[in-house]
Amino acid sequence: MDHTLFVLVDLLGTFAFAVSGAVAARERRLDLFGVYVAAYVTACGGGIARDLCLGALPPVGISDWRYMACSALAATMTIWASPWVERLKHPVNFFDSLGLGFYAVVGAHKALAHGANVEAAIVLGTVTAVGGGVLRDVLLNRVPAILAKEIYALAALAAAIVQVVAEVNGRSIAVTPWFAAGVCFVIRFLAMRYSWGLPVVGAPRAGTPPIHAKRADDDP
Amino acid sequence: MDHTLFVLVDLLGTFAFAVSGAVAARERRLDLFGVYVAAYVTACGGGIARDLCLGALPPVGISDWRYMACSALAATMTIWASPWVERLKHPVNFFDSLGLGFYAVVGAHKALAHGANVEAAIVLGTVTAVGGGVLRDVLLNRVPAILAKEIYALAALAAAIVQVVAEVNGRSIAVTPWFAAGVCFVIRFLAMRYSWGLPVVGAPRAGTPPIHAKRADDDP
Amino acid sequence: MDHTLFVLVDLLGTFAFAVSGAVAARERRLDLFGVYVAAYVTACGGGIARDLCLGALPPVGISDWRYMACSALAATMTIWASPWVERLKHPVNFFDSLGLGFYAVVGAHKALAHGANVEAAIVLGTVTAVGGGVLRDVLLNRVPAILAKEIYALAALAAAIVQVVAEVNGRSIAVTPWFAAGVCFVIRFLAMRYSWGLPVVGAPRAGTPPIHAKRADDDP
Repeated sequence: MDHTLFVLVDLLGTFAFAVSGAVAARERRLDLFGVYVAAYVTACGGGIARDLCLGALPPVGISDWRYMACSALAATMTIWASPWVERLKHPVNFFDSLGLGFYAVVGAHKALAHGANVEAAIVLGTVTAVGGGVLRDVLLNRVPAILAKEIYALAALAAAIVQVVAEVNGRSIAVTPWFAAGVCFVIRFLAMRYSWGLPVVGAPRAGTPPIHAKRADDDP
Repeated sequence: MDHTLFVLVDLLGTFAFAVSGAVAARERRLDLFGVYVAAYVTACGGGIARDLCLGALPPVGISDWRYMACSALAATMTIWASPWVERLKHPVNFFDSLGLGFYAVVGAHKALAHGANVEAAIVLGTVTAVGGGVLRDVLLNRVPAILAKEIYALAALAAAIVQVVAEVNGRSIAVTPWFAAGVCFVIRFLAMRYSWGLPVVGAPRAGTPPIHAKRADDDP
Repeated sequence: MDHTLFVLVDLLGTFAFAVSGAVAARERRLDLFGVYVAAYVTACGGGIARDLCLGALPPVGISDWRYMACSALAATMTIWASPWVERLKHPVNFFDSLGLGFYAVVGAHKALAHGANVEAAIVLGTVTAVGGGVLRDVLLNRVPAILAKEIYALAALAAAIVQVVAEVNGRSIAVTPWFAAGVCFVIRFLAMRYSWGLPVVGAPRAGTPPIHAKRADDDP
């Protein structure tokens, strides 16, 4: 996989995730600083958790200024150019789905490169992709969307599995990432297109709507 | 302590903790994926936090498939065989109390083995035992039960202290874990039997029930 | 900077942060154990997060008993001598602002000493100062105050930037910490004195007061 292209895709994913964090922060009516922090945590939280588990310290989300700059740009645009971001909704969904797959691929690859075994690489690939969104929701004081919107995390899990299985079987590092991220993208696209979702567990109680009903419009 | 027996007890503890997470997730009406994640986090979160603090990376809860398999089994049973789990309530409470003590013992022992001092070993033993439950409650967007149900965490703390004090004084590694876990179990059993609890701090305000009143039925 | 004086200031900061955690826990009507945990997490959580990111393990907040003792003392006083703590409100605010700056300085300095680059040192200095408060609020199930009360975190950020810029340019280690912490203190003092705050982002909705309006009295 071409390095320049890879960095570009990685930063587009960061941007899309950061927009998701900034939009959620605006809806919670945080102040300026809060919006920047929410954008940064959403974009970089998953990678930081992965690096802590691998001992790759300090985490790249903290020591590489480009992630911070990219998050700050996304937050600034969300704050000052929100009608423009509204119109960007479809592109943002597009890059979010793309970023999801590439984050899972990058996380799984980095875990294997640091000597993690197959189980750990799959878990850490998925954590890289969805960890930032979980931290965003914890900070914004709500149940993480992925716990009630499962096709999102399952798509990332699929990408991590494809990448790890291919890599330990010696498949070409030039082709695998594209294929793995493509699997994630297709699953996510179909899930959004046809509103796929797993059943909610537990009998409904009167007056208690399922959590994901309240979450439907939370992500860009 | 016999290694096979030890692994068996450890996995029973994992199972009991995972059931506790899955039951709490069902009550929150998460979807299938959310229930599996809540079970896994409850069972393995404390050990992961301990391993991060010790630099024992990647954390064993991520790299040993047995913990994942055991959590997944517990979640599956909670979802598909919930009447059976209902009837298991007393056994689950039993294994939860047993697991609590053994988790504290294992955590304290691992911390000492990694060169941590006495203070750190006691803290990390307790974190191993109660950390998963805290993460579960944070993910489910509620105040952690142990902050308002203190005899639970104090029992784990007692086990960690007994284990650490005995180990630094050269007591037999064959006997100490049983004794330390036994202390935890007895404290926990008596606390449940006689509804022990420390006083809530702060004057009551009208219309604000103490947090633990809402929590009473949250754990199996 | 004189070592004895430094330790004294560090412990006073720990004390002030722990009081802040204990007061918040009382308002949430946690039990005795919960108040001690909240005090400890508020005082030591930021430093623990920093040490995890630097690989300085086990984190000093876990392995140095003085931080635990200081937190426990603060919690005990908040519980048993609360009228006295009420009268201490102004001193606590004073030490909290002082501790904020020194925590940021200590965190940034430790990060540079562990080989972190400039970006990471600034982030980790700020995290050291505000991380404990964020963890406190997550445990107490509310949106972190710093996300809606930004002059607090910005003051810590300023101290971290001053410390890092001075240190990488070879400025005297004897003078810089005082100056950096002083900058933080002055910003914080002016922000409290004149009720400075950044605008809340997003249009108001009927019946949804901004989060910081509910938070105003949460910190000592």
